[in-house]
Amino acid sequence: MNQPDKQRGLILVYTGDGKGKTTAALGLAVRATGRGKRVLMIQFIKSPDRTYGEKILFDKIGIEMHQKGIGFTWLKTPEEHREALKSAWAFTKEKVMSGAYDVVILDELNNALAINSFPIDDVLPLHEVLELIEGRPYGMHMVITGRNAQQAIIDRADLVTEMNPVKHYYDEGIPAVLGIEF
Amino acid sequence: MNQPDKQRGLILVYTGDGKGKTTAALGLAVRATGRGKRVLMIQFIKSPDRTYGEKILFDKIGIEMHQKGIGFTWLKTPEEHREALKSAWAFTKEKVMSGAYDVVILDELNNALAINSFPIDDVLPLHEVLELIEGRPYGMHMVITGRNAQQAIIDRADLVTEMNPVKHYYDEGIPAVLGIEF
Repeated sequence: MNQPDKQRGLILVYTGDGKGKTTAALGLAVRATGRGKRVLMIQFIKSPDRTYGEKILFDKIGIEMHQKGIGFTWLKTPEEHREALKSAWAFTKEKVMSGAYDVVILDELNNALAINSFPIDDVLPLHEVLELIEGRPYGMHMVITGRNAQQAIIDRADLVTEMNPVKHYYDEGIPAVLGIEF
Repeated sequence: MNQPDKQRGLILVYTGDGKGKTTAALGLAVRATGRGKRVLMIQFIKSPDRTYGEKILFDKIGIEMHQKGIGFTWLKTPEEHREALKSAWAFTKEKVMSGAYDVVILDELNNALAINSFPIDDVLPLHEVLELIEGRPYGMHMVITGRNAQQAIIDRADLVTEMNPVKHYYDEGIPAVLGIEF
């Protein structure tokens, strides 16, 4: 549905191996919310069983965020992950097409699409992702994060930033820091 | 003041020419605030005369943010910029050493330190920046953003991410988008 009075929504991709991809998406959610936009963030890998600082604050200020993953792949069976992805993807399609949002963030969708330790193509097909991107409501901005972005997604994006790690304190033996990384 | 019961604060740097540096710092502010940390963001280039979506929301939720710049260099005289940097730097030193914050974000400080179109070394001396980093309260995390990070700052950082532009819609003639970039 083309609405000439409305600016076409953009596709933004944050990819690369460095820190800051999800964090930048959070910042974008805050900026857009400040401008009165209706923002939705769906997380494909993170699980609702863990606590995240951003979720605590988003709940408080009313930014809608759903953690649809079950944590990292090595802690669960492939079948558990497949089920979670299937559910996350059905949920995403419905939400995107509902017309209820101006900005939708699909956090770590790239990681999910790059899973190759078990088959995902029947529960999260790339061609459906591309169809959803193309067919989203006209003015909707979409932000897709995660390592190893598919070339087909990069091709369709308006903005792609690659976060490259120059230095990381993990290398010095400092573990993930509360309030900084989660 | 060394407090052995407290984890040493980290220095995080977001640099590079790509989009997402300030945005990632905003996300980090949100995450840290969600964890009950006291966050301060000081912006070195952005001016309080313009409106930013993030500022609107931060004011609402009580994250302290100060825009101490006067906008981009080509719109003002060198003397106006020098005065603004002088004031921003004095303000920063006082705030950092006050002990009132767990996380301090110095947004676009790298850009300010890389100005070479007029002399800045007497109002924003690199050696003082390095001294402040080293001498900050023990548990304080510091986030420094902006292009062209000085090597001396990278050397002292615990985490450095370089945001690289892969693709940008400016190149297709689309101007800055409300709610996405400001």
